[in-house]
Amino acid sequence: PVSAPSAAPGGIRPPPCLDNRARSPQADAMIESRTQITVRYAETDMMGVVYHGNYLPWFEVGRTTLLKECGLPYKELEAQGYHLPVIELGTKFIKPALYDDNLTIITRLKERPALRIHLDYEVRRGEELLVTGFTTHVFINKTGEPVRPPAYLTERMKELFARK
Amino acid sequence: PVSAPSAAPGGIRPPPCLDNRARSPQADAMIESRTQITVRYAETDMMGVVYHGNYLPWFEVGRTTLLKECGLPYKELEAQGYHLPVIELGTKFIKPALYDDNLTIITRLKERPALRIHLDYEVRRGEELLVTGFTTHVFINKTGEPVRPPAYLTERMKELFARK
Amino acid sequence: PVSAPSAAPGGIRPPPCLDNRARSPQADAMIESRTQITVRYAETDMMGVVYHGNYLPWFEVGRTTLLKECGLPYKELEAQGYHLPVIELGTKFIKPALYDDNLTIITRLKERPALRIHLDYEVRRGEELLVTGFTTHVFINKTGEPVRPPAYLTERMKELFARK
Amino acid sequence: PVSAPSAAPGGIRPPPCLDNRARSPQADAMIESRTQITVRYAETDMMGVVYHGNYLPWFEVGRTTLLKECGLPYKELEAQGYHLPVIELGTKFIKPALYDDNLTIITRLKERPALRIHLDYEVRRGEELLVTGFTTHVFINKTGEPVRPPAYLTERMKELFARK
Repeated sequence: PVSAPSAAPGGIRPPPCLDNRARSPQADAMIESRTQITVRYAETDMMGVVYHGNYLPWFEVGRTTLLKECGLPYKELEAQGYHLPVIELGTKFIKPALYDDNLTIITRLKERPALRIHLDYEVRRGEELLVTGFTTHVFINKTGEPVRPPAYLTERMKELFARK
Repeated sequence: PVSAPSAAPGGIRPPPCLDNRARSPQADAMIESRTQITVRYAETDMMGVVYHGNYLPWFEVGRTTLLKECGLPYKELEAQGYHLPVIELGTKFIKPALYDDNLTIITRLKERPALRIHLDYEVRRGEELLVTGFTTHVFINKTGEPVRPPAYLTERMKELFARK
Repeated sequence: PVSAPSAAPGGIRPPPCLDNRARSPQADAMIESRTQITVRYAETDMMGVVYHGNYLPWFEVGRTTLLKECGLPYKELEAQGYHLPVIELGTKFIKPALYDDNLTIITRLKERPALRIHLDYEVRRGEELLVTGFTTHVFINKTGEPVRPPAYLTERMKELFARK
Repeated sequence: PVSAPSAAPGGIRPPPCLDNRARSPQADAMIESRTQITVRYAETDMMGVVYHGNYLPWFEVGRTTLLKECGLPYKELEAQGYHLPVIELGTKFIKPALYDDNLTIITRLKERPALRIHLDYEVRRGEELLVTGFTTHVFINKTGEPVRPPAYLTERMKELFARK
């Protein structure tokens, strides 16, 4: 479900990545995205549950969706010569996910990114919260040096965060 | 290189898992273990470096070695009906590891485990520090309930931490 | 999209897992299933394409879907004490899949399973064929011994293959 | 343990990658390499054994070692602008590998590579044969076109296969 909100007729409809449920008057804007995944057998371990390291590719699926829904597909960022490596991450495991579970990955961008992007994640089975986590990213160029984000991303983010 | 220190003749030699370099009079005991790994092509991603999620299996290799060297192989813990799931983890990425790099995983147990085990990790290429991280674990039984660690582990840990 | 065909009102509608397009008079019945996946960054390697080993979890996603659509979810098979380990597999790589590609995994059961189940796979990007493969499985019980498939699976397969 | 056999003093010692055990008068030369690995928890699945797809990275570890021992490290091949993607593979699973098993990956190059390289693999636990497999590779350049192998590889292979 790719959606480039700027392409919406009239630009009136809020982009799907803006979390409407957070829109109480006092609430800050928050960009949010939800993705469904089904647990693969390959992702389990002999404990009978999902191996803890296998939640990280799901976080990645979550932020890929969020960036797409904001009209900023990561693939295009790379095509423009940018990478967004993870420089820090953290995860808390509350309940284990099981084989064939249908899970929702909720990804949130709470602050407008400057030199860094910070994302928060939740993994839920229905309403049940299984795992929380975050990743922090920097922008680097093809030779690995830290750089400012591209202007089109900065503009787009300004636009999205202005809609609160 | 499994080593059950208690089996050492006379019990005089310090176990390999006790970090000798920390043995200044004022230093606390610290259990430390070092493992070598070589980066697999499978562990890289299209950024040309190791995928961030693939450091977690290396941390696991590190703690497997540490527990073995302490005479407490994890395999045996599971055979006795215990699991040690990760309940929290964190990682900081300083420099990327590359394909075919020979790396050292340094695992440290700084505090005697009670209901939880907390481990710290470093991934180094030679002396160069690439990644740091930690994992926190609880003991659960086969039905997933939190339990006290088995007596033999508690005893062994007391023994190891008394040698400071 | 789980669908237990036997639950269809009147049992008239063919199950989605029966491939209608193969229904020329001379064609044998064939059970077929299609699943969509999006390539994860974690699944690429430094060659810039999907690592060859990462197609196998996709084949697994394919057969999970096929079994579900036939009303025989694998999870239930395991709950009944059966496992279906892979005893042989083969794969041919024609063109590489890329990050963020939307792919179709086509899974086919061409012969009614007796003691073994043989499945064929295709990975396609649109109409473009990227990879073909097969897996062969046996039924084992919880102690790892080869066993006959459960009666309900045999019955269901007879039923599905009779509809040609 | 990288070893460039041609660098051996006097060039008298056979390279470690030449299988001495095959050196009966009538035997063809065969290049063979052995690597030790220890099964990681991450490589198991909820069946309690190694997930079938996780043998492929081990095959890769095997051929990385073989190429290194032949003085043709894969990393250098890539640095020279060549890739060796897998175009076909097959695997037979005889017995399952288990967590913490110490395994030997035996990799064999039975025929002098021309446009393709074909490798055979065995995974053994002690003498016990667990898995066999093969991979076939082609040489491609950075833009993905099939090319002839670099001259230095062809020369080196001629040299190695002449020593039968």
